[in-house]
Amino acid sequence: MQSCAILLLHCPDQSGIISEVTKFITDNQGNIIYLDQYVDREDGMFFMRIEWELDNFLIPRDKIKEYLSILYAQRYQIEFNLFFSDVRPRMAIFVSKMSHCLYDLLARYKAGEWAVDIPCIVSNHEDLRFVAEQFDIPFYVWSINKDHSNKAEVEAAEMALLEEKRVSFIVLARYMQIISDDLIARYPHHIINIHHSFLPAFVGAKPYHQAWERGVKIIGATSHYVTAELDAGPIIEQDVTRISHKDTPVTLANKGKDLEKIVLSRAVTKHIERKILTYKNKTIIFS
Amino acid sequence: MQSCAILLLHCPDQSGIISEVTKFITDNQGNIIYLDQYVDREDGMFFMRIEWELDNFLIPRDKIKEYLSILYAQRYQIEFNLFFSDVRPRMAIFVSKMSHCLYDLLARYKAGEWAVDIPCIVSNHEDLRFVAEQFDIPFYVWSINKDHSNKAEVEAAEMALLEEKRVSFIVLARYMQIISDDLIARYPHHIINIHHSFLPAFVGAKPYHQAWERGVKIIGATSHYVTAELDAGPIIEQDVTRISHKDTPVTLANKGKDLEKIVLSRAVTKHIERKILTYKNKTIIFS
Amino acid sequence: MQSCAILLLHCPDQSGIISEVTKFITDNQGNIIYLDQYVDREDGMFFMRIEWELDNFLIPRDKIKEYLSILYAQRYQIEFNLFFSDVRPRMAIFVSKMSHCLYDLLARYKAGEWAVDIPCIVSNHEDLRFVAEQFDIPFYVWSINKDHSNKAEVEAAEMALLEEKRVSFIVLARYMQIISDDLIARYPHHIINIHHSFLPAFVGAKPYHQAWERGVKIIGATSHYVTAELDAGPIIEQDVTRISHKDTPVTLANKGKDLEKIVLSRAVTKHIERKILTYKNKTIIFS
Amino acid sequence: MQSCAILLLHCPDQSGIISEVTKFITDNQGNIIYLDQYVDREDGMFFMRIEWELDNFLIPRDKIKEYLSILYAQRYQIEFNLFFSDVRPRMAIFVSKMSHCLYDLLARYKAGEWAVDIPCIVSNHEDLRFVAEQFDIPFYVWSINKDHSNKAEVEAAEMALLEEKRVSFIVLARYMQIISDDLIARYPHHIINIHHSFLPAFVGAKPYHQAWERGVKIIGATSHYVTAELDAGPIIEQDVTRISHKDTPVTLANKGKDLEKIVLSRAVTKHIERKILTYKNKTIIFS
Repeated sequence: MQSCAILLLHCPDQSGIISEVTKFITDNQGNIIYLDQYVDREDGMFFMRIEWELDNFLIPRDKIKEYLSILYAQRYQIEFNLFFSDVRPRMAIFVSKMSHCLYDLLARYKAGEWAVDIPCIVSNHEDLRFVAEQFDIPFYVWSINKDHSNKAEVEAAEMALLEEKRVSFIVLARYMQIISDDLIARYPHHIINIHHSFLPAFVGAKPYHQAWERGVKIIGATSHYVTAELDAGPIIEQDVTRISHKDTPVTLANKGKDLEKIVLSRAVTKHIERKILTYKNKTIIFS
Repeated sequence: MQSCAILLLHCPDQSGIISEVTKFITDNQGNIIYLDQYVDREDGMFFMRIEWELDNFLIPRDKIKEYLSILYAQRYQIEFNLFFSDVRPRMAIFVSKMSHCLYDLLARYKAGEWAVDIPCIVSNHEDLRFVAEQFDIPFYVWSINKDHSNKAEVEAAEMALLEEKRVSFIVLARYMQIISDDLIARYPHHIINIHHSFLPAFVGAKPYHQAWERGVKIIGATSHYVTAELDAGPIIEQDVTRISHKDTPVTLANKGKDLEKIVLSRAVTKHIERKILTYKNKTIIFS
Repeated sequence: MQSCAILLLHCPDQSGIISEVTKFITDNQGNIIYLDQYVDREDGMFFMRIEWELDNFLIPRDKIKEYLSILYAQRYQIEFNLFFSDVRPRMAIFVSKMSHCLYDLLARYKAGEWAVDIPCIVSNHEDLRFVAEQFDIPFYVWSINKDHSNKAEVEAAEMALLEEKRVSFIVLARYMQIISDDLIARYPHHIINIHHSFLPAFVGAKPYHQAWERGVKIIGATSHYVTAELDAGPIIEQDVTRISHKDTPVTLANKGKDLEKIVLSRAVTKHIERKILTYKNKTIIFS
Repeated sequence: MQSCAILLLHCPDQSGIISEVTKFITDNQGNIIYLDQYVDREDGMFFMRIEWELDNFLIPRDKIKEYLSILYAQRYQIEFNLFFSDVRPRMAIFVSKMSHCLYDLLARYKAGEWAVDIPCIVSNHEDLRFVAEQFDIPFYVWSINKDHSNKAEVEAAEMALLEEKRVSFIVLARYMQIISDDLIARYPHHIINIHHSFLPAFVGAKPYHQAWERGVKIIGATSHYVTAELDAGPIIEQDVTRISHKDTPVTLANKGKDLEKIVLSRAVTKHIERKILTYKNKTIIFS
């Protein structure tokens, strides 16, 4: 498995972009192993993900970003991110009391499905410490007092931990607490949440109860990047399952668990594989 | 195919109801060919659909309702509806300009899939008259003036038509006009609408555009009974389809058409087969 | 949570069965909390699942079976199974090298989702011992020699273990070895397998490769009871996911893992809840 | 709506293809409005669909094919098809006695959803003549005698009709008769069939009955190009629906009808939009 460079870019659409970029790579002896592009014709924007092998690439990896910036980004107003497949992102998991999403994430991690490191699990409760211990991952608990008197202190401690652990993105695996605006600002479109409804239906608390009250025939789960507005960030993945009048809030919650964990893990997979571009509060998901 | 009686009932749950009702039927030599029941344990309510052959049934069909009322309804506080499989409901279809739902309904009708009569199609536009003519069904057009000066007149004419045609229920097949409270009151839980979103997401106008704006990954369609509150009546059927960032409001509307027609026709099928009970703004759908 | 009796029965359909059985329960002061029934009109067979609370039931629990046999089974040719909700089935898990199904089962078990005990995990490889250790469950490895010289011995040891552990049913969680006819005979319709295809398509080895070769647009997974004929036992649950020409056998296998674990766990849930009746190589799954 | 050229090509994968082809178009002032490509890394093959506006294109439309052949096809071993969006394909529909697929096709046609002409409908029965008449499309009936004595004659007549009507592709809308090898050879990968099962499960006759016998929990429908081997051609589209033990072969057939018509129409849509490439008995379906 060779090391690869992964380039995610977008810019105003104009003729010749694909040919310029692919020519740049192939002229410098990069072997392209993935290319997918998409044009938003309404906004006139061009989006591309391209991946190439680094072994014979003539430009040193620490110079690629500079070359792209100078040669193309200025000329075409390109915004881009460059990743290397051998640099593993570092994922922090935040949990509360329910274990199903956490187990699903850790089982994939332990089976080697993901090129990711998990340096820490954070919680506002002790309940799931045993799971972290099963998988030998450091577990940190901070809970905010009811009078919020220690809120600033807790957030500072969390920030320090994330910094110390060099966390690159955060997964909220049924973490039942509001994330502070500061933390969101520190990780823009790098905090992935799972909401247990088919957003935008049933924003906020107790979505299964809301769904049952409304008498829907299908329930869903939604994974999205966290933004300042509750449950309103760019949607990464959704899925649904059929229910019936026989279901109660309790059976809905049980059926929903399978949705939640699968939808969350699919979103995390796409993020780890650097296949998500965000634009205007939406996601472009490359195949 | 024998004629059957179909009984839909609900009452407070109490022991012995099923045995009483089935005993009543079998003691009177009715052959039960369908029985499904459901208990809402939260509300302590019992729901049942039972169907039996009339050929050897000892109670004359015009006396069954009376017997049920006197022998059981009083004692168990049962509310029930009694139907006969050889009495075809009479369905009016309301349309505007889009033909996909109308064609789907008429193709099923013409192929003999449904035990239903369609005495009239009503519209606020001339556009689909040709479809009605293809199927030899009377087509009536009334459009309400922009200043609403003829609103009362139009509604009176519609009511008169529905009365004259002895319409038993109404299907809004992408009818883009608000139904008056009077008409809703005249057909309580007997007007079936198709809304082109996964309700309760995207209530009201332009749901595909709303869905595209929000960046959802799945769109849906919802068939429900019309009540006074817009898009808030009891949901009969929903279905969804997966979309991607490549979709536009136009492609969403196209993909949605297949959902709309199938979801609407499934709801109409259940209604015609008398398999829907409504309770507390929800539906119980028997299998 | 009261203890309940769960009765699963089938017999030739005849009038009065439901009323007889429900009357038997209610007359003896059993509070019915679940009843679902189904009539196979082609074969004239009646199937029912009924569950009632034992607290005030007048018949002692160790006499219920006898009463049912004498009072009803003879008269109506009823075959039945009686279970008690407070008697937890004992589940053995067989695995080979892939961990995704095993983790999914154990995560549910550990979270208390199932009223089940797991006294042992059996494997033909050492690979997943670490998972068993994470969850503190005894792990036994026997591998059959290439010349099959120790086959009888291994099977005898397995049988002895299952006996000793009082195992009531077996889950093959991607166990890549043929189960002997003796073991199948000992656990008739009590061994649940997950096959990684949409059966009956792609029976046997390498189903994802077969699916890719055929160019299907959807892949599936199937959970079924094991019978003597390979991949041909009664199907309990199936599910599918959409794929495209971009998928390879490797990406199919990855996408399939989520299907496999969810489909297997749904089947196990139904089995533990005693909601499955088998008849003529098919399953009746109560809701 | 401008006229566009649509180029579907495949060739051995090599660096620079995309840039060469896009450069050729943009250098000649073609405005690319669609580009999607896919690389089969196992076979080292490159596939592309590209669409551009012809209005300012410097190469006359009747010369494009020649230029592509000489400048690129030779050099890169490209095989390609060139279409123009203003040249409507001509579709013949073959039917037998069931109308659901036929109505679905004709409703879309009549609503203007497809850029297609339908010059004729062919059948082996008179049953659906009335549908053809509703839509004013010529209807031709030929039935083959039981002793097959008129087989050659019928096929010759059909061929002559297809020739006369300049039919470019054929849709078998539940046509219950085997297509002759001659006709298949005349329309290679241009005859679209709908098979009422989730292929490759349940090839051949009575698939719903087969599915019911096997006790599957999901049924499907498959649209594919017809090849000499029965039900074994390249799959274009599949979809499924959930069923239960309560279904009978009759209810399966009814539920399946909706699948069949939607799956067939989706395949026809992709074919009309020239979004299908076939390679090695599989399809590449562009988005």
